[in-house]
Amino acid sequence: MRHPIIAALALPLLLAAAPAKQPTTAEVIAAAPAAAWRPIPAEQLLVMETTRGPLLVQLAPQFAPAHVAAIKALVAGGRFDGGMVVRVQDNYVVQWAAKESRLGPPETPPADIKPLPAEYERPLAGIAFTPLPYRDAYAEAGYVDGWPAARDRKAGTAWLAHCYAMVGVGRNLPPDTGDGSELYAVIGQAPRHLDRNMAVVGRVIDGLATLTSLPRGTETLGFYKTDAERTPVTRVRLASSLPEAERPRFEVMDTTSVSFAAFVKARANRSDAFFARPAGAVDLCNAPVPIRKAP
Amino acid sequence: MRHPIIAALALPLLLAAAPAKQPTTAEVIAAAPAAAWRPIPAEQLLVMETTRGPLLVQLAPQFAPAHVAAIKALVAGGRFDGGMVVRVQDNYVVQWAAKESRLGPPETPPADIKPLPAEYERPLAGIAFTPLPYRDAYAEAGYVDGWPAARDRKAGTAWLAHCYAMVGVGRNLPPDTGDGSELYAVIGQAPRHLDRNMAVVGRVIDGLATLTSLPRGTETLGFYKTDAERTPVTRVRLASSLPEAERPRFEVMDTTSVSFAAFVKARANRSDAFFARPAGAVDLCNAPVPIRKAP
Repeated sequence: MRHPIIAALALPLLLAAAPAKQPTTAEVIAAAPAAAWRPIPAEQLLVMETTRGPLLVQLAPQFAPAHVAAIKALVAGGRFDGGMVVRVQDNYVVQWAAKESRLGPPETPPADIKPLPAEYERPLAGIAFTPLPYRDAYAEAGYVDGWPAARDRKAGTAWLAHCYAMVGVGRNLPPDTGDGSELYAVIGQAPRHLDRNMAVVGRVIDGLATLTSLPRGTETLGFYKTDAERTPVTRVRLASSLPEAERPRFEVMDTTSVSFAAFVKARANRSDAFFARPAGAVDLCNAPVPIRKAP
Repeated sequence: MRHPIIAALALPLLLAAAPAKQPTTAEVIAAAPAAAWRPIPAEQLLVMETTRGPLLVQLAPQFAPAHVAAIKALVAGGRFDGGMVVRVQDNYVVQWAAKESRLGPPETPPADIKPLPAEYERPLAGIAFTPLPYRDAYAEAGYVDGWPAARDRKAGTAWLAHCYAMVGVGRNLPPDTGDGSELYAVIGQAPRHLDRNMAVVGRVIDGLATLTSLPRGTETLGFYKTDAERTPVTRVRLASSLPEAERPRFEVMDTTSVSFAAFVKARANRSDAFFARPAGAVDLCNAPVPIRKAP
């Protein structure tokens, strides 16, 4: 009982049990050539330290340039150092805040942190959109530059999708009240109803379990009641501000590559011996783009 | 900063800010008449105690009668008392086991706990299937008797969907190796690829955060390495075995009711003041059936 072989295995070692008709996701990832991977630029990688451990957040300036610039400025100014995790709502989001934030009463918002215009979508022109070859419940879904996204061809727009681990900017009721000083990450079933209602600025690429394993807040919407419950965010830095040798180096699979197309297909048609009946489909957020430590 | 008004509010109090074109999900639930709710029978409710707090699991004998019967027999025999949470894999499942389980090495499986035939789907005949009025990424989705489900009309089958909090039976590689002595609950993006590959037997209706907030296991697939990491399951009982006064009483919204149809519509078209752009769609697992304490 202590170590059962169980549920949803993607382990290559199990393949011996049955001849695979097509490669597994693990095999596709292992076989992807170096050319199928893109390094995450150090200028787009936040190194976030908490008292429970570190997290890495990749930023998406292609989709929310003003918000990403504001977040990078806050980080450069040390404004997240001494921040806190303020909210964990089960099956929804974990949210953390800079030491001072504009959001909500009771504190007086810091005068130098300015609210930003809504950046919920961007022009479809100028980006390579790789459609998901399966239907999506919400929109025409696909991948852009390594990110889960959706598009409206008639309107000529594209936007990032609220999949697990994606990071957005908290705001008050009016759309233009976010400023980057409070960020949330998705920790449950993809809340795609937030798509085009929030500025999505990136994703947690490592360490999210540091926060998903936190006790849920007991106040409305999962907010914590006391400072004692709030996990301190001790320091946040941009990887490019670290000495070369200390920079975390990660790579994202190129979503225009042959390897990625094979990955999505394998994800929709699991050939691991465990699966009696492959689904023949996969939703956008159940085919997360492979990310790895740089070899 | 300590208490920001933020992200994804479904609070009726905010409605004053803008005239709602249609009711919010909270309003639909509040307005549902008594006739729109169905009590969960005490014979279908597991009361599970752990050292971190209690959980309630509703069973679905309509879909996996042999597995549910086996689980109830194990519970009646006290076989889950002294069990443990053996696995937490981030964005996937939490899994707990009876004190003795057939699954895997190294222990000798208990002779009296027998493996069961696969119960991955059931005949479509004899059940009321209420289609989700929006497209699903995987199948023809809908609701059956208060449960998220899908169907294949050509094959004449229906099955429960792996949405957040749904509970299934762990097994080894061959399909007929589950026995009910190890159960998992979904704690991330719906792993719908497991649909029709596992016996789904119920859902956690209360207390899941007790387990979602556990540290993730560090072994392959999120298994814990040591007993010290494993949360004890101290006692599991069927509610019907408890004195009347001690039975938890919950109700599920009738998925054939007018109220439920309004709920799904409201969930797809959020009218809360927070939402600048309603999605106009919702996926099956993002429209979880309302469940409440009996008034």
